[in-house]
Amino acid sequence: MAHQDPIARLVSQLARLPGIGEKTANRLAFHIIKEPAAFAQELSEALLGVKERIGLCTTCCNLTETDPCWICQSEKRDSSVICVVEGTPDLMAIERTGEFMGRYHVLHGVLRPLEGVGPDEIRVRELVQRLSKPEQGVREVIVATNPNTDGETTALYIARLLRPFEVKVTRIASGIPIGGDLEYTDRVTLGRALLGRREI
Amino acid sequence: MAHQDPIARLVSQLARLPGIGEKTANRLAFHIIKEPAAFAQELSEALLGVKERIGLCTTCCNLTETDPCWICQSEKRDSSVICVVEGTPDLMAIERTGEFMGRYHVLHGVLRPLEGVGPDEIRVRELVQRLSKPEQGVREVIVATNPNTDGETTALYIARLLRPFEVKVTRIASGIPIGGDLEYTDRVTLGRALLGRREI
Repeated sequence: MAHQDPIARLVSQLARLPGIGEKTANRLAFHIIKEPAAFAQELSEALLGVKERIGLCTTCCNLTETDPCWICQSEKRDSSVICVVEGTPDLMAIERTGEFMGRYHVLHGVLRPLEGVGPDEIRVRELVQRLSKPEQGVREVIVATNPNTDGETTALYIARLLRPFEVKVTRIASGIPIGGDLEYTDRVTLGRALLGRREI
Repeated sequence: MAHQDPIARLVSQLARLPGIGEKTANRLAFHIIKEPAAFAQELSEALLGVKERIGLCTTCCNLTETDPCWICQSEKRDSSVICVVEGTPDLMAIERTGEFMGRYHVLHGVLRPLEGVGPDEIRVRELVQRLSKPEQGVREVIVATNPNTDGETTALYIARLLRPFEVKVTRIASGIPIGGDLEYTDRVTLGRALLGRREI
């Protein structure tokens, strides 16, 4: 099977996916071959559909089929609070908690100065533009980037950038995960948990 | 994102693949969204191509684009030896060794009496038909099913089935893998390695 036959082609295409090595790609390919044709057909349509029909919401930059996205459209959401996230998966994670009824802003990345990812590569300008319109009535911006170096840098950058506006900029809490164990918590997290202590 | 939007649809389609859970499907989907449209396009074409263009070789039952397959077509392969394998991935593994220059027969499964997989569910009839034609000149059938319960059962079944024909039925060797360690070899394998000892 030296020539690029359809099986080898499918294997090499699957192996381009992140975290899928050649062995897994092989296993997946032979599974797809074994399944009825509808399986490959449906997966193929889903692949094309996602690229054809998904774009960015012009308000919050979320990935969406409609513009504005369903969250920006919803009358039930509180427009005075904007939660800033790195990507749509983070937005979906917050939605799953059911704890947040405000709106979002999706950055599509974080600042990575060492890798040359600056403010122009992520959607911060759109956030500033959004806050520039006083009719939006935004009171609070919650920065929910990940609690790692790049996420913290981005949070500080956003806080500084929004200083001219009359909004409160907050950061999600870091600490010991629920169900976690003090004994096995790394010292940075434990330190943060102490600093972020709250009255009960 | 409660309704079945294109992202949710892609995630659920990807999650149907074996070994791909919902989290991995999510990660893959967002990777696909981030990549240029050509990425999804090429993967989609490869998926359809494999189902449209791949069929079974009418001689050896191998998955193939052409009929007969490239191995059955090749003049360089020895028609007098047939290696019986469970599936095309096994055939490809044997091809990679470069040690076998005969032809193949692909069963597409093994006997699994407990799960109701009998001889009609795998391609043994095709093997018998192939041997029924004396002009093929088959001298040896090497049964290269996996050395586990189902593979051994299938090997014994094939050996019994081919008894009426004037062919030698052989089984691939089991033993300690090259680079392996006697100390850490399980006792069944070590027992097999002793039984299968050869003069040097």
